[in-house]
Amino acid sequence: MFRKIEHRVFRDPVHGYIHVNHQIVWDCINTKEFQRLRRIKQLGASFQVYPTAEHSRFSHSLGVYEVCRRMLTEVDDLKNNINDYDKTLVLLASLLHDVGHGPFSHTFEAVSKIDHEEYSEMIILGNSEVNKVLKQVDDNLPEEIASIINHTHKNKLLSQIVSSQLDADRMDYLLRDAYFTGTSYGSFDLNRILRTMKVVKDKIVVKESGVHAVEDYIMARYHMYWNVYFHPVSRSYEAILTALFKRMNNLKASDLMNDYPLLKEFLNEKTPNISSHFILDEALMLYYFNKMQSSKDKVLSDLAKRLLNRKLFGYKDFEDMAQYEEICKLAKEQGYDPIYYVYKDNLGQTPYSPYSKDTSSLIYILNKNNEVVELSKVSEIVSAISAGKEKSESKIFFPKEIEV
Amino acid sequence: MFRKIEHRVFRDPVHGYIHVNHQIVWDCINTKEFQRLRRIKQLGASFQVYPTAEHSRFSHSLGVYEVCRRMLTEVDDLKNNINDYDKTLVLLASLLHDVGHGPFSHTFEAVSKIDHEEYSEMIILGNSEVNKVLKQVDDNLPEEIASIINHTHKNKLLSQIVSSQLDADRMDYLLRDAYFTGTSYGSFDLNRILRTMKVVKDKIVVKESGVHAVEDYIMARYHMYWNVYFHPVSRSYEAILTALFKRMNNLKASDLMNDYPLLKEFLNEKTPNISSHFILDEALMLYYFNKMQSSKDKVLSDLAKRLLNRKLFGYKDFEDMAQYEEICKLAKEQGYDPIYYVYKDNLGQTPYSPYSKDTSSLIYILNKNNEVVELSKVSEIVSAISAGKEKSESKIFFPKEIEV
Amino acid sequence: MFRKIEHRVFRDPVHGYIHVNHQIVWDCINTKEFQRLRRIKQLGASFQVYPTAEHSRFSHSLGVYEVCRRMLTEVDDLKNNINDYDKTLVLLASLLHDVGHGPFSHTFEAVSKIDHEEYSEMIILGNSEVNKVLKQVDDNLPEEIASIINHTHKNKLLSQIVSSQLDADRMDYLLRDAYFTGTSYGSFDLNRILRTMKVVKDKIVVKESGVHAVEDYIMARYHMYWNVYFHPVSRSYEAILTALFKRMNNLKASDLMNDYPLLKEFLNEKTPNISSHFILDEALMLYYFNKMQSSKDKVLSDLAKRLLNRKLFGYKDFEDMAQYEEICKLAKEQGYDPIYYVYKDNLGQTPYSPYSKDTSSLIYILNKNNEVVELSKVSEIVSAISAGKEKSESKIFFPKEIEV
Amino acid sequence: MFRKIEHRVFRDPVHGYIHVNHQIVWDCINTKEFQRLRRIKQLGASFQVYPTAEHSRFSHSLGVYEVCRRMLTEVDDLKNNINDYDKTLVLLASLLHDVGHGPFSHTFEAVSKIDHEEYSEMIILGNSEVNKVLKQVDDNLPEEIASIINHTHKNKLLSQIVSSQLDADRMDYLLRDAYFTGTSYGSFDLNRILRTMKVVKDKIVVKESGVHAVEDYIMARYHMYWNVYFHPVSRSYEAILTALFKRMNNLKASDLMNDYPLLKEFLNEKTPNISSHFILDEALMLYYFNKMQSSKDKVLSDLAKRLLNRKLFGYKDFEDMAQYEEICKLAKEQGYDPIYYVYKDNLGQTPYSPYSKDTSSLIYILNKNNEVVELSKVSEIVSAISAGKEKSESKIFFPKEIEV
Repeated sequence: MFRKIEHRVFRDPVHGYIHVNHQIVWDCINTKEFQRLRRIKQLGASFQVYPTAEHSRFSHSLGVYEVCRRMLTEVDDLKNNINDYDKTLVLLASLLHDVGHGPFSHTFEAVSKIDHEEYSEMIILGNSEVNKVLKQVDDNLPEEIASIINHTHKNKLLSQIVSSQLDADRMDYLLRDAYFTGTSYGSFDLNRILRTMKVVKDKIVVKESGVHAVEDYIMARYHMYWNVYFHPVSRSYEAILTALFKRMNNLKASDLMNDYPLLKEFLNEKTPNISSHFILDEALMLYYFNKMQSSKDKVLSDLAKRLLNRKLFGYKDFEDMAQYEEICKLAKEQGYDPIYYVYKDNLGQTPYSPYSKDTSSLIYILNKNNEVVELSKVSEIVSAISAGKEKSESKIFFPKEIEV
Repeated sequence: MFRKIEHRVFRDPVHGYIHVNHQIVWDCINTKEFQRLRRIKQLGASFQVYPTAEHSRFSHSLGVYEVCRRMLTEVDDLKNNINDYDKTLVLLASLLHDVGHGPFSHTFEAVSKIDHEEYSEMIILGNSEVNKVLKQVDDNLPEEIASIINHTHKNKLLSQIVSSQLDADRMDYLLRDAYFTGTSYGSFDLNRILRTMKVVKDKIVVKESGVHAVEDYIMARYHMYWNVYFHPVSRSYEAILTALFKRMNNLKASDLMNDYPLLKEFLNEKTPNISSHFILDEALMLYYFNKMQSSKDKVLSDLAKRLLNRKLFGYKDFEDMAQYEEICKLAKEQGYDPIYYVYKDNLGQTPYSPYSKDTSSLIYILNKNNEVVELSKVSEIVSAISAGKEKSESKIFFPKEIEV
Repeated sequence: MFRKIEHRVFRDPVHGYIHVNHQIVWDCINTKEFQRLRRIKQLGASFQVYPTAEHSRFSHSLGVYEVCRRMLTEVDDLKNNINDYDKTLVLLASLLHDVGHGPFSHTFEAVSKIDHEEYSEMIILGNSEVNKVLKQVDDNLPEEIASIINHTHKNKLLSQIVSSQLDADRMDYLLRDAYFTGTSYGSFDLNRILRTMKVVKDKIVVKESGVHAVEDYIMARYHMYWNVYFHPVSRSYEAILTALFKRMNNLKASDLMNDYPLLKEFLNEKTPNISSHFILDEALMLYYFNKMQSSKDKVLSDLAKRLLNRKLFGYKDFEDMAQYEEICKLAKEQGYDPIYYVYKDNLGQTPYSPYSKDTSSLIYILNKNNEVVELSKVSEIVSAISAGKEKSESKIFFPKEIEV
Repeated sequence: MFRKIEHRVFRDPVHGYIHVNHQIVWDCINTKEFQRLRRIKQLGASFQVYPTAEHSRFSHSLGVYEVCRRMLTEVDDLKNNINDYDKTLVLLASLLHDVGHGPFSHTFEAVSKIDHEEYSEMIILGNSEVNKVLKQVDDNLPEEIASIINHTHKNKLLSQIVSSQLDADRMDYLLRDAYFTGTSYGSFDLNRILRTMKVVKDKIVVKESGVHAVEDYIMARYHMYWNVYFHPVSRSYEAILTALFKRMNNLKASDLMNDYPLLKEFLNEKTPNISSHFILDEALMLYYFNKMQSSKDKVLSDLAKRLLNRKLFGYKDFEDMAQYEEICKLAKEQGYDPIYYVYKDNLGQTPYSPYSKDTSSLIYILNKNNEVVELSKVSEIVSAISAGKEKSESKIFFPKEIEV
């Protein structure tokens, strides 16, 4: 059903090559919606801390596809238990799962109430080049692929490959983000995990001989969170982004917003359609920030300058609300509206939680007696970590010029 | 004279860390002109072939600075023969030598007659944040730094560090471009070259025991040219960019160009000033390409779509003018104006040329008898390569839809 | 006092180069006792599992020296608080701390009651080339260096550099063993740890901003233990080695042992002198194993064949003594003396123990308030791991031919 | 015919994993003759220069097998044009091609007139465990495999895989030797070469799109020769080894040689049988060197000490015979017999020679017109190099103590 093509490759520093064997995969890559991902950074604000963190959702999406392809080829239980049709489905789902991503990763989502998974679904199902490519081969494809992404597909294996605690998405981004930031934290032994993967009763599990590689993977994630994703300098950039969007929201009735017509829809309650979403990429945002620098609105102009020219907020550990209010007071006295200029965040990350009721957030191990058990039962390390208290961090961000 | 600061670093996958020890270096990095380099890709069109070639001039410029810093610290003859003032000068020159770069690397320069070196000088000397930072410490700094970049500084060593056949710029970009494309071609033994560098009579030379590392470096450059910089798919993208600029030039009197006000100046004879140059980054260009997609001008709109959505031209080896004219004729018949839709390039690269009259384009070796000789005299490989004929390549690019 | 020489280097894949600047370091490397380390594998039996784990104590010792050299150069607090004399002392101590190592790592020590640290001291203090090299410069050197190694030197910093929870020895061997086995487990961010090291009141501490790198280092160690050092196949080889030494001990009065004269001394109660120790390297052992293959003693000959030709024991998880006795019984019935042919081990490793009374086994962190606190107080991960139960493993080894 | 087993792997830093799928491959690895290769260093004397060059013929042989396996799996033309029987044959030939290697690589061969290829054949065909393993499956196997190794097998493709200008042997050793010495010279793009390999009329060729990778491979070889294999310090060690063997030859009638019984056979005209060869490994040689240190023969004892304790000869570039004779004269005056103490070598390496009459030493390219042409016809670089003069080097080695 799916036409094979002469084997094509993309060079990729993380996986060596990305291998493409199906016409439909090639065609999806060459849609305008997928090409748009080149204009969205994978790590949002991290390039402010790690200058080389400039890689895009485009190469990450190819990477997720490639890890999926390797799982389907190298893990015998997946190779033998999934039919060719379903294999192509899950390859396409891996490729397209992020196609609806907006600029600046999760910051924009937080402010605009827009959900990238919702958009991925809208693009796959709606009036898009992607949808056309899929339908040309089979009318059911868009629904099938969307159902893998939103976990409603009847073949439970497929969704686990695309998103679970040990999925192609996470396995690519840890390796990729480590490579492009130049940190070693994210590295783990992907080969070993693939070599020890099995399927037991529709569940992807790892043999006990792979437990150390899984522990390493969980630690890699933990370290990437605290060293990269949650780095205070990125959060400072995000604090300013958030403030800027807040300011735009508060100005949305004003004429001043006419200078940024393509953003206006995103400040409303209604979810904009996918053609509005399509033009919303980081090139547009940077162009608008450039323009905002000369806005008559002082707040907008100041925040935009800070983003473009790296005049970031400073920060302090959050102690209590009294401290927070004191900083707000000082900010106000020095002419900074605390609504935009004082920002408190609170971040937590649990490396792995064995008590989750959601079994999709558990990792299962096939022990030596051929029983499937939850990871923390065989891993002293994971068991210890899960019993410990969650690490969390809260900081207050505000302009360095404020004397605190 | 130059204030030392507590040692700060940027993480960098190529060099491990970028080390900053001077307040003035830190301040230059934080100018808006230097931060703008984050919005200019180092490799222009290469991301069309190597999806991860998304790194910026910003991280490259930090890398050149770092290689320069290592030369000044690790090469004893440079460490001991350059005074502290000149060391800081050359560090700043390394950092700033590309600050005037425009979008899409050399393609834009070719079309607009704009020279990035000229702009680097204009930014350093003119009304810029960079200039202010420099002058605040010493009124002569801008001129001194500019003179290193344009090779008129009296201390000849300084210019050799920044630009020569074995300079910090080339040594960074080969390693960096190899890392970010995921090709191994560009790798060579930087440590070995630094370990064998000496200074003899104001000339940077390499000891004979480092000749193999230099040979490897020359081959790295050769391979990077043919595998990355001159890859036909990049050239196809550049062919379209060139056509698009040509079209804009031909439309410059038209109202249609009012949609892209920030570009208009660049279509004139006169060199735009640095504030016009400042806003010209790839974010702006991509935003304009997005806008051009709905231009009433069919050519502009078609070319912009090709760039954004990767509908690139195909290509054929150039054989003779008859073949070229035949393709032009076919293009015309099928509705494509050959002025924009048929493009012939011609590229050549000599790995190394020992016969150059310009001694700055030669590499010198300190042989075992302590004589300084030109590289090809001691390297059989380089001597052989230099005697061979230059490799060159000419291709014709045109829409794949044209049936040739 | 210590003569500087023109900077010499050894190429090393782990650290790039090993840098030598002192005549005395160069001379120590060129003693016969230090060169002997080339004939002792760093990882004893691990090459039976990881075929490329063939690196020697020689390159590891150079690596420890190099990490020490980097600590003294790159950690400002060490650079500034240790005088030149003490710096050279600790460099020599790093280089020489393993000079007394015997073949097959710890297995041989276990059987022969020989302690490699004791031998290192005997070589440094006794009648050796090493001792001569040291005394030629300063009569006190041997004692000073020995006192660093055995933790009695008055400058407490020096011993911490050579052996503590975060010392040059461990930091080299994790990286090195990871590199040569081809596992990624042992990698951690050495640069980051060096960048965040400080000295507070004669204690080497790490700034809070380096805690993640320390956590990673502790996990690296944990993983290397369970994946490499404690790999059951290595333990199987060690079980056979142990049995073979046991057999030799039991035969020590017999004429059969006359074939292996150089080993006889090591089977006695008395510690052999350093000239006997000198000739005991892995070349000798392998030669003797070769010879033992034709011994009239069946056990000796069988065990030697197993070691040389990789006919290793199989293994089972130890359950209880009844199981162990059952296996012994079966072995006996099938003609295998359980004294030599059934072996039970029991291995445990605690990643890090914060409750130790020995402060030298703790890691200290300089927190944001400039207080020195024990690691588990700031690291949720380490705190969790330390609270968990220790991982331990016990296996029974016996010939695969025994049907159990 | 060849029994498949559950997929087993060896971890390998160069190739990730070595994959074993056939019982017979597993069994060959576990023969005593193959295990003996663990006791032979891959690079002979190079560990004297590159301390970590301690890897063995054992891991190299596994690596050659793995490259062969990848060629048979990843190169479609090989995968499809070689039947399963022949595939297993060539896998075994790759694995076993070096099984006859002696200690210290080529030095020993030069002195003893022993040829490792001859011994590989003798072991495969003769009374060995390897031979038994092979015959157990098929009586013809030994002859078939030997005929691949000595290029007489009727299927010409098989021999090309094992030994030709672009074979599994060279491709493994360049990568492996680069990895273990820590030099970057030997790296080239194996993936790219495999991706562009084709078979045309029983000839392995590379598509034109792979020419750059082939050029890089040729340069890698060139650099490895001059930087590693021909390093003067290794040659100095080899000069001493050669002298020591010469001395033993001259003493072969003497009682003094009774201390080294296992070597005596190798000093005769007659080729020793494979059981004598079997015990000749580097452990034995090092044990004998140790013993020779106390030989009554001064020359033997002195040379052995030099080898063990790294008191190597110094060297000078050879100028003319007058200089050589002068050094001999000085040596004699200072008590060193020039027969053993003055050594002149002469080494040359041609990166690639297109004029060879032996087509097996040529590399063929499939150009864009689907014609098979010799490499230098399409590669300007190779063409230039081949036209240049061969690089060669001659040095004189003698004790540093001789004042010249």
